[in-house]
Amino acid sequence: MKGPERNFPEAIIRLPRWIGPFLEGFPLLLSSRDERMSLVIELSRMNVENGVNGPFGAAVFDESGTLVAPGVNMVLSEGCSLLHAEMVALALAQKAVGRFDLGQGGERHFQLFTSTEPCAMCLGAIPWSGISRLFCAARDEDARAIGFDEGTKPCDWKKAFSSRGILVECDVLRSQAVEVLKSYARQGGKIYNSRPPAADKEINGKR
Amino acid sequence: MKGPERNFPEAIIRLPRWIGPFLEGFPLLLSSRDERMSLVIELSRMNVENGVNGPFGAAVFDESGTLVAPGVNMVLSEGCSLLHAEMVALALAQKAVGRFDLGQGGERHFQLFTSTEPCAMCLGAIPWSGISRLFCAARDEDARAIGFDEGTKPCDWKKAFSSRGILVECDVLRSQAVEVLKSYARQGGKIYNSRPPAADKEINGKR
Repeated sequence: MKGPERNFPEAIIRLPRWIGPFLEGFPLLLSSRDERMSLVIELSRMNVENGVNGPFGAAVFDESGTLVAPGVNMVLSEGCSLLHAEMVALALAQKAVGRFDLGQGGERHFQLFTSTEPCAMCLGAIPWSGISRLFCAARDEDARAIGFDEGTKPCDWKKAFSSRGILVECDVLRSQAVEVLKSYARQGGKIYNSRPPAADKEINGKR
Repeated sequence: MKGPERNFPEAIIRLPRWIGPFLEGFPLLLSSRDERMSLVIELSRMNVENGVNGPFGAAVFDESGTLVAPGVNMVLSEGCSLLHAEMVALALAQKAVGRFDLGQGGERHFQLFTSTEPCAMCLGAIPWSGISRLFCAARDEDARAIGFDEGTKPCDWKKAFSSRGILVECDVLRSQAVEVLKSYARQGGKIYNSRPPAADKEINGKR
């Protein structure tokens, strides 16, 4: 029963080529919260300008404010629904640091910045990653307003994160991130979609 | 500001080498639900025998019952917290089929089998993947009973899945899957952990 059917493919999480040159415009260390979020919002904007993917950016920083790994949504270009910006940033940060638990059991502190509040999948991924602070720009409702589906989230996920020692700060430069979302919608950016809830089938997409 | 700091790593989702020879013992097409789940439970058991990872297996099948992609937990070996068995199976199935929406907007039907009910992250990932049926063996509580953290899930995720047209069947060969979990615990398998909830810090791990 040996044969080509038994050879399963690999999937590679690799940043798009434009990211390297783009990051040359930024210092390695971004000392303020707003500088870090500005970088992430720029990633979301450039991700639309440079390809076919959704308007979402993210990045992991260490406690000094040094960029550990950026992430952008690559669902459409890679044909992989796991590749939300947050998931890419977390996977590459873990690779860069050399361990799955970035926080080393609470010894170290890493921050995840994201241009839009994480969807249900990315929220679920955060506690497994060892991240201890989450910063969001646009809200869940901002993504839904242009047709993206955020999934079904736990009722009080911020409280659940808090009980795990993960601090959450929302609305950081929200209006700038919302402008990127609205611009994507205006230019007819694809609202891709697999299994929307029945009532919203006409309008809801996914990230 | 160019320099090695700007070179971010890649992360590769690649099945362990033992999977190819292991699968030679199974037909390509598994016509019954229980045969498919037996394969997945065997994957969970062999994943412990063949390495350092957790006792979790999964697989995507098409509507005929043909294996599209298997998955096993590879969090510890790969140093990547995203690599739960379900995530691996979904990513590789999408690669095999050539699209992120396995179901092609409802035209096709793919099934995800998993040896333990998906954690919060994997639950969030399922609606984005185009999967339309989910089969689980061990329950959430079975994983928690040996110390694994399943994360904070939406209150009624099965109802939410149903409203998306995703059918869920639980307790399929549950006792066989539970035996693998118990055996892992008995032999002192690692219950790895990043950010457990405060009240459970002493006992809860993560997948």
